[in-house]
Amino acid sequence: MREFDLIARYFSWNDDFNKSLAQGIALGVGDDAAVLDVPAGSQLVTSIDTLISGVHFPKNTAAHAIGHKALAVNLSDLAAMGATPAWFTLALTLPEINTDWLDGFNQGLKTLAQQHRIALVGGDTTQGPLSISIQAMGFVDKGKAMLRSGAKAGDRLYVTGSLGDAAAGLQAHLDNLELPEADRQYCRKRLDYPQARLAESRVIKDYAGSCIDVSDGLLQDLTHILQASGRSGVKLGAKLDSCKLPLSAALKRLDQNLARQFALSGGDDYELLFSIPQEKEAQFLEAMARRELVGVSCIGEITDCESLMSEDTANYIVDENNTPLKPAGYNHFHEQ
Amino acid sequence: MREFDLIARYFSWNDDFNKSLAQGIALGVGDDAAVLDVPAGSQLVTSIDTLISGVHFPKNTAAHAIGHKALAVNLSDLAAMGATPAWFTLALTLPEINTDWLDGFNQGLKTLAQQHRIALVGGDTTQGPLSISIQAMGFVDKGKAMLRSGAKAGDRLYVTGSLGDAAAGLQAHLDNLELPEADRQYCRKRLDYPQARLAESRVIKDYAGSCIDVSDGLLQDLTHILQASGRSGVKLGAKLDSCKLPLSAALKRLDQNLARQFALSGGDDYELLFSIPQEKEAQFLEAMARRELVGVSCIGEITDCESLMSEDTANYIVDENNTPLKPAGYNHFHEQ
Repeated sequence: MREFDLIARYFSWNDDFNKSLAQGIALGVGDDAAVLDVPAGSQLVTSIDTLISGVHFPKNTAAHAIGHKALAVNLSDLAAMGATPAWFTLALTLPEINTDWLDGFNQGLKTLAQQHRIALVGGDTTQGPLSISIQAMGFVDKGKAMLRSGAKAGDRLYVTGSLGDAAAGLQAHLDNLELPEADRQYCRKRLDYPQARLAESRVIKDYAGSCIDVSDGLLQDLTHILQASGRSGVKLGAKLDSCKLPLSAALKRLDQNLARQFALSGGDDYELLFSIPQEKEAQFLEAMARRELVGVSCIGEITDCESLMSEDTANYIVDENNTPLKPAGYNHFHEQ
Repeated sequence: MREFDLIARYFSWNDDFNKSLAQGIALGVGDDAAVLDVPAGSQLVTSIDTLISGVHFPKNTAAHAIGHKALAVNLSDLAAMGATPAWFTLALTLPEINTDWLDGFNQGLKTLAQQHRIALVGGDTTQGPLSISIQAMGFVDKGKAMLRSGAKAGDRLYVTGSLGDAAAGLQAHLDNLELPEADRQYCRKRLDYPQARLAESRVIKDYAGSCIDVSDGLLQDLTHILQASGRSGVKLGAKLDSCKLPLSAALKRLDQNLARQFALSGGDDYELLFSIPQEKEAQFLEAMARRELVGVSCIGEITDCESLMSEDTANYIVDENNTPLKPAGYNHFHEQ
């Protein structure tokens, strides 16, 4: 199969299908570039993420799951910005043409695209070690994007869903962790099929001061919020109530120190972590309760760093006993 | 070095620098996604291309050239659409952190970005076999994009610059071709440092019926124009004057059959191939002559396929003696 046949067969989703997903496609797949209309009053929000076999998913991961996850992690970035998905492009590098694999990948990708109404508008296929880069594009009303930089001392810290499942799933896959079979399957599904919290984001964006998706681990991603929200002379920290970290039933059955470690430092959960100003908290919880959404948990609050230990110049995070919690999120490049 | 340090050191081009390059960056590198303003009356044009080591550039290619080429091939897609560059995102996969390599790559990328005023607004760095995906974004006035689909029988076929140099450079590198040292260097430079024809595109877009950039080889890319421009019952072909294929001095010194083969089927030239309706030709040439641009050459014309041999249902291309020229462009996935 030639490259052009491959694009035609798998990735030229027909115009009607694409247009049923997203508006504004003047020209989709099949020319040198796509031509797109951003609605008046909207800003374009754009995110790019790469998945590498053996790094971002275990080598034996099903093609269907890879197609899902490659798009899901980008949709999660849009959710973290409070953006509505519109279009994406796909750069797919394959070691060989395997039609079974391509069928599965395409199905995983297309099912999720349909669910969140995002259209494939362009791409590139090349030969090499398996790697998938997706750039997702969406819209926010002008000036309304949720940023990492809007947290203030006193804000309440919230997270969607449960934390640590994907990390437990990975450790079980690596034979570092024994889990009952049903729990193993559940955690593996959380690793392979992350859910972008777009429906939740549509509510959260009207209340949150700051937001990020938990891809590198709670402590690591919280550090990003604290660093982005700090100003000169105002260093921010956070106080977490470790009893309130939301754990799935599977993680509740684990040793609780280990479960807490997964929840604090495990990556790949793709839940939203966000800060809600205290005065908006009641309204926010009411708005969430009115909809059928995944639950949210208050896990602590943003603090003024000066009120904690002051000798440490880094932003930092403590637990309910004021014991520092050190970020240990996933880092693609180990210290040299 | 950690991933975040790497992004901070190399790819967080400071806001002032970025804003000197492109307008409309509400939020650049450093959050979950970039937030961008598309000017009123403009459409967004977006293209993605991946470069794989050993496939799209020889393994010993200088990091500076890789940085240049990864952006240049995407700028070339924007040029082929008649778009003005604005922003790009970078997905960079590296086997290891090599600061010399990163310095060179960043410099090659940044120099070209500055030249064409395109700002880096987001990206992702991961560990794995060397691969670079760039998504370039630009603008066209609404409805004014140059498409592959606008060629008509009788249109004159033009190409910018010279053809076949990059293919000769690659064959010389692979020791399949002997060249005088200066010619070898010239052809290698054409392979490593393609020039996106953006200045030419700004003139061409006011006259051309169709346009594509020559990345897979003249015949292959011409076939894309013919297929996209054909309608039901109207198959298009092309008649090329092989004496008029524009050759550099280096290629003129080669065996002329070989030079012609490079010019017809060699990829990686990134020249623009476009069709000009006859009635606009004089005006077009006048407009080109008024500016200091790379030259353009008329290499033939678009034909009605029925006027040539009719038993072949494929679109096709003949030379001045009506001898069919078979496309043999680069194909990433060989026939299985």
